[in-house]
Amino acid sequence: MFTIGIDYGTNSVRALVVRSSDGAEFGSAVVNYPSGTQGVLLDPANHHLARQHPGDYLFGLEESVRGALAEAEGKDGFSADQVVGLGVDTTGSSPLPVDAQNQALGLLPEWKSKLAAQCWLWKDHTSWREAQSITQRAAELRPQYIAKCGGTYSSEWFWAKIWRCLNSAPDVFEAAHSWVELADWVPSVLAGVTDPRLIKRGVCAAGHKAMYAEDWGGLPDKEFLSALDPKLADLRDRLYDTAYDASEAAGNLCADWAEKLGLKPGIPIAIGEFDVHYGAIGCGVTEGTLVKVIGTSTCDCGVVSADKTVADIPGICGIVKGAILPGYYGIEAGQSAVGDIFKWWVEGVCKGDAALHGELTREAEALRPGQSGLLALDWNNGNRTILVDQLLTGLLVGQTLYTTRAEIYRALIEATAFGARAIIERIREYGVRIDRVVCTGGIAEKNALLMQIYADVTGCTMQVAASSQTCALGSAISAAVLAGAHPSFEAAQAAMTSLLPVEYTPRAAEQATYEELYRLYRDLHDSFGGLSRSADLSGVMKSLLEIKSAASGE
Amino acid sequence: MFTIGIDYGTNSVRALVVRSSDGAEFGSAVVNYPSGTQGVLLDPANHHLARQHPGDYLFGLEESVRGALAEAEGKDGFSADQVVGLGVDTTGSSPLPVDAQNQALGLLPEWKSKLAAQCWLWKDHTSWREAQSITQRAAELRPQYIAKCGGTYSSEWFWAKIWRCLNSAPDVFEAAHSWVELADWVPSVLAGVTDPRLIKRGVCAAGHKAMYAEDWGGLPDKEFLSALDPKLADLRDRLYDTAYDASEAAGNLCADWAEKLGLKPGIPIAIGEFDVHYGAIGCGVTEGTLVKVIGTSTCDCGVVSADKTVADIPGICGIVKGAILPGYYGIEAGQSAVGDIFKWWVEGVCKGDAALHGELTREAEALRPGQSGLLALDWNNGNRTILVDQLLTGLLVGQTLYTTRAEIYRALIEATAFGARAIIERIREYGVRIDRVVCTGGIAEKNALLMQIYADVTGCTMQVAASSQTCALGSAISAAVLAGAHPSFEAAQAAMTSLLPVEYTPRAAEQATYEELYRLYRDLHDSFGGLSRSADLSGVMKSLLEIKSAASGE
Repeated sequence: MFTIGIDYGTNSVRALVVRSSDGAEFGSAVVNYPSGTQGVLLDPANHHLARQHPGDYLFGLEESVRGALAEAEGKDGFSADQVVGLGVDTTGSSPLPVDAQNQALGLLPEWKSKLAAQCWLWKDHTSWREAQSITQRAAELRPQYIAKCGGTYSSEWFWAKIWRCLNSAPDVFEAAHSWVELADWVPSVLAGVTDPRLIKRGVCAAGHKAMYAEDWGGLPDKEFLSALDPKLADLRDRLYDTAYDASEAAGNLCADWAEKLGLKPGIPIAIGEFDVHYGAIGCGVTEGTLVKVIGTSTCDCGVVSADKTVADIPGICGIVKGAILPGYYGIEAGQSAVGDIFKWWVEGVCKGDAALHGELTREAEALRPGQSGLLALDWNNGNRTILVDQLLTGLLVGQTLYTTRAEIYRALIEATAFGARAIIERIREYGVRIDRVVCTGGIAEKNALLMQIYADVTGCTMQVAASSQTCALGSAISAAVLAGAHPSFEAAQAAMTSLLPVEYTPRAAEQATYEELYRLYRDLHDSFGGLSRSADLSGVMKSLLEIKSAASGE
Repeated sequence: MFTIGIDYGTNSVRALVVRSSDGAEFGSAVVNYPSGTQGVLLDPANHHLARQHPGDYLFGLEESVRGALAEAEGKDGFSADQVVGLGVDTTGSSPLPVDAQNQALGLLPEWKSKLAAQCWLWKDHTSWREAQSITQRAAELRPQYIAKCGGTYSSEWFWAKIWRCLNSAPDVFEAAHSWVELADWVPSVLAGVTDPRLIKRGVCAAGHKAMYAEDWGGLPDKEFLSALDPKLADLRDRLYDTAYDASEAAGNLCADWAEKLGLKPGIPIAIGEFDVHYGAIGCGVTEGTLVKVIGTSTCDCGVVSADKTVADIPGICGIVKGAILPGYYGIEAGQSAVGDIFKWWVEGVCKGDAALHGELTREAEALRPGQSGLLALDWNNGNRTILVDQLLTGLLVGQTLYTTRAEIYRALIEATAFGARAIIERIREYGVRIDRVVCTGGIAEKNALLMQIYADVTGCTMQVAASSQTCALGSAISAAVLAGAHPSFEAAQAAMTSLLPVEYTPRAAEQATYEELYRLYRDLHDSFGGLSRSADLSGVMKSLLEIKSAASGE
């Protein structure tokens, strides 16, 4: 038996054909989104804006699945009729407006060229004012709504984006019958759903991004939404009452798409989850494991048995029952930019390419912790956890007339490591166990320098998932459980996931230096992030020079 | 009548043949120092170190004067025997050790390859610990010694460097019979002085860098020096008792050097001053004028009649009677790096050349104030005025994933403008008039973007001196007065200096935005610089984003 995991990333979509018995990957294909800048529609006048054309998703769906099947075809006797299920994961919160027939507005000729009618990509931050208002109104009226998502509603999320659309493009808002997360929309398209009310929505997106919880009867109540804007309260009736975890199917493959993909009609489609959540499953997440998906940004996921009580953790993106594994609370945290910061530095500023990434990595590897005298904040795209503030920006301190671009490159890696540590400390502080860290994503596999720095900074051994496609693998695992290939997620994970033999362990001397640097990072973090309103930063530059002298053996 | 001004810069020396009647420049020649990296001896393991080989000075002296004379020869009937005097200016504090015959140790075979035996270039900061100790001991024992130089003794200065030599290279210290500022040593060589006690030292270097003042009988007393190190007290006997302003000659051209240079022996040699002090004269400095010499670093000079009382101004490099013009207090302030910061960014980080400087300038010109969302501190080489702290470093805040190198380039220019404003405000605060600002140096002449930003940030109209060689011109003016070509410095300046027709006036809208940005700059400046120990920086990033939004018309 085989299932296919389909993973929608920021710039491309990948399909992966996976054998259910052992997780062996038989075929894979990636399709870059054809529109915009590397698949993202931008507005040069507003760097907060990031949209995506829904046509790219459908084009990529067909191309990637067909490509993966073509690659798998004939291997060990594989044929497409052995595929017993499909799973889909996507970026998020990436909501898109649909009409009453579940057609994406962006696909319709009249809306095709309007940015507000496209999918509002996760990293679109145009709705920062709306997010602030939601946070304020929730704090006044329904504090429980945001208590589970760190106490702050983000501009990356569902309601803020829809409200922003209402405020900035009311014609699009009026034309939208409903709004659907990409993670729910793709499964609904595969299942041939033509009425938005019939889309089976995943609790992952609903709970993390739309303030959905069983405790208060689903989505935010109409009184609260009216307090934001009465039109949002009206919209609630055209959304959904119940959201589901991965023990339920999103539907079954419709004839039309079965033909397009060359698969059997009627096979089950797993409930949609965000990429990192299915990625966590593909990394073998269990209680006590922190999964770090390290890519353009970073997502950190953990699970705690639903039998236990989990405290509200300030600054965490969300604690949602069933968001990752059925029967567990899913905990999500993350950093708004990681790989994107290195890309900005190497490509945007230094005007280099992959070769320069390599060159700077080699130079940075030759440096000892603290030797550059530099310290950075990893906020070029805001701070997701633990400050939940998209209106924060980057900072670099300690540069002299001799500072090199490789030193800055390393300082930026270190900054993301300090950000990672702040998240781990916050989660532990609230009683959630972290016994091991499993990383996944291209950076985790390829960037030994970064992984060692993360180990030295966090004090945790860093392990790496064996699959290069843990998100797609997790989607395929979800489909495999649904199709009956395994009796449980635990059994499926045990059979279908594994780790690379390499692991990165903390080194005592480097840990000690990073301990000092982390204290200085927190001084900057807490001052510029607003946790401390009367900071003494007069010693920061001097401390960095002292650490630099010590590291240089001066 | 003609005089020659000889200007020793950081990377090269220039000679300039000037007609005394009108300041017309008849000939000029530049010689790059042949040793080290662009003339500077560096230590890769210690970025504080910057030395210079004294042989480069003598080589450059002969070559540059001969080159300038060759260029002038025959113009309007010029011949070398019409040269009636020489003036010399140099970087400083750049002291060098000499033996009992006034030979620079660095010229002697046994010391030639030892870094400590060379000239300790102004930007050498290896003695920061010694400077701190001098500041502390002076505050305890002789507060008056540092009251006139801003309350802090700098690692760039005479005693700190000599003490550092004693601590780090005691063999060199022992071999040195005396130490001489480069500004005094070159005139002494031209005058054929073979006994260090007979060198006529300039009050410019003595007063600004060596804590010399008539008020306490010259150099610091031996009791104080003993408190630093008894060997420094011993050295005092081999230094000097009296220092002179530019109304005195340093000596007369000796036969040996007259022959080397092709000039008449016996012509007077002006007292040595630092480049910027003679540069101020070359810019036509009068009471109420601030002269800004904008180069790798910046020096700001003003004069106040010696009949008046000038308050001690904290953070100013020095207030020294006779340092610039006889009969006036000379006031000196400065920024440790200006052009050097842009050079670091364009060449060191972006790996570009002059063409990239041009490209980034054009892109930066297209930006409005505040539009980048960036703010920087101009401390890549420490802060000279108003914090007097070489252990400060650079800072950049506000970067996103879309920040460009041109935006950073502009932010660095703006940072130096904010630094310039802090100096102007400090000087005015203590009652010294600044009615106009006259700038000089390659950046002032060529970089219209920077000049306009300086006008908008400071609120002062920026004028530019007509001569491209104001330092050498000032030296030539000093020699012309000495040789009797003019009855006074005032008369000589009136005849020999002028301004370019272009001037940069502040623009109201830009001034208003820079007013906001300067407040934020001061928040960072005061926090990281130690003026404020309980800062609230939580609003800085958000304020920058608001200013950016307003500037972008978002």
